[in-house]
Amino acid sequence: MQQIESIKEFGGYLNRYHHQSDSCHCQMTFSVYLPPQAAAGKVPALYWLSGLTCTDDNARVKAGAQRYAAEHGIALVFPDTSPRGDDVADEAERYDLGQGAGFYVNATQQPWAVHYQMYDYVTQELPALLEANLPLLSGVRSISGHSMGGHGALICALKNPQSYKSVSAFSPICNPVNCGWGSGCFDAYLGEDVSTWQAYDATLLVDAGARVADILIDQGTADEFYDDKQLLPENFREACEREGQPVTIRMQEGYDHSYHFIATFIGEHIAYHARALKA
Amino acid sequence: MQQIESIKEFGGYLNRYHHQSDSCHCQMTFSVYLPPQAAAGKVPALYWLSGLTCTDDNARVKAGAQRYAAEHGIALVFPDTSPRGDDVADEAERYDLGQGAGFYVNATQQPWAVHYQMYDYVTQELPALLEANLPLLSGVRSISGHSMGGHGALICALKNPQSYKSVSAFSPICNPVNCGWGSGCFDAYLGEDVSTWQAYDATLLVDAGARVADILIDQGTADEFYDDKQLLPENFREACEREGQPVTIRMQEGYDHSYHFIATFIGEHIAYHARALKA
Repeated sequence: MQQIESIKEFGGYLNRYHHQSDSCHCQMTFSVYLPPQAAAGKVPALYWLSGLTCTDDNARVKAGAQRYAAEHGIALVFPDTSPRGDDVADEAERYDLGQGAGFYVNATQQPWAVHYQMYDYVTQELPALLEANLPLLSGVRSISGHSMGGHGALICALKNPQSYKSVSAFSPICNPVNCGWGSGCFDAYLGEDVSTWQAYDATLLVDAGARVADILIDQGTADEFYDDKQLLPENFREACEREGQPVTIRMQEGYDHSYHFIATFIGEHIAYHARALKA
Repeated sequence: MQQIESIKEFGGYLNRYHHQSDSCHCQMTFSVYLPPQAAAGKVPALYWLSGLTCTDDNARVKAGAQRYAAEHGIALVFPDTSPRGDDVADEAERYDLGQGAGFYVNATQQPWAVHYQMYDYVTQELPALLEANLPLLSGVRSISGHSMGGHGALICALKNPQSYKSVSAFSPICNPVNCGWGSGCFDAYLGEDVSTWQAYDATLLVDAGARVADILIDQGTADEFYDDKQLLPENFREACEREGQPVTIRMQEGYDHSYHFIATFIGEHIAYHARALKA
């Protein structure tokens, strides 16, 4: 991995890197915020998965998370949302499929399967790379994200409960097989056999017995995509109630789907993860 | 003025407006963050002037200021950095002259003078408009800004000490007549008679006897534009020492010119302004 930028912030460093990904078979870009405490020893890490159209840059600029990461001594990892490049399949006229819309799955269908292996990338390759090269505690990770990235955080944790100390999400796509965004991508990436989609749907994973210790979700009530039934937190809540999976879904009155919503509550999420990461 | 957007953040509202400006003779866009306290009564306001290439959107997304404004009960006002539109003079190939580069002066030269009256706009028209239409305390204002906007904040306060309770700046252009950015614009906006430039140069204003109670400046030592002598805080410090103008210039080790630098210290600036606004 090659460091391509380093910006001092809140006493730590917001660094950006390139590397050749074995999972995605292309060059990937990501950012890591190392808090001041990382100068003196290894620190835990919170992975942040961003939403549709985002790169590694959106959250690091807009979420206001670095302040809290510096207070708690936690690193922040910002992966990209998909493989990218001229050689990587894309649907230029769609923002919700292809580059910028990897959906954190391992694609099985062509042309997507060549590069779109974001599930392996985020859960396996990137943590191994970072824990070998940066002052991060081995295996002491939590995960969060927004919208498509909230979906990603939920499925990564539910499928790998031993890999993450805690999980939270903002406005997550909770039941992708039952919304336009999810079904439109899963059809392309995973094929027509809907039974293969379940492995990447947080609601269906809970129904199938996946469990984590706890889940924190914030959802704005003025979120246009919530109104459009793209997010479906009600389905996830029902599955958790049916199955006895602990979850706190906070309906935040008047908040929308933007990073201004995330900025408002990211401090509480980072405090929530800090308790688990330092337990 | 017409409200065109409203986003809930930290319990208050980040609103955006259009209006027809009498000073600039065109439609102007600006944003205001109203903290939760504004629902119960009038609040003081901190004006934020942004730098080259910015609109009203950059600081509201990147600076992380709304959190602190909500804590202190202070409104934030984000003007645009210039007049804009197809009818407004521009130099498309230059980022440091024309649209996005108003430099907070009243232009006297054509074609700029028709619309580029940002000094009157920021110091007179906008405060009058906002205090008549929003829950803002009359005349209880402070001012801050970044780079070109740091220059703007310094000159607005030095020329109108009675209008602002306090002034601060990040990486300000302190002595524009002596740097490429400033002289390249002042020549176009104000003409070849250099004696007319002094009225918009913070260092020369202090030398000419302008005074405010106090000034807070943060400047990163890893700022490429500081190295390029575009900012010249050393000239401003010397003028303040010569003239007995109180100033605190904090050289922040390792910080650059970006909003990550601003985000790191904006909380301290807002606390500084809150003390003056509530005194």
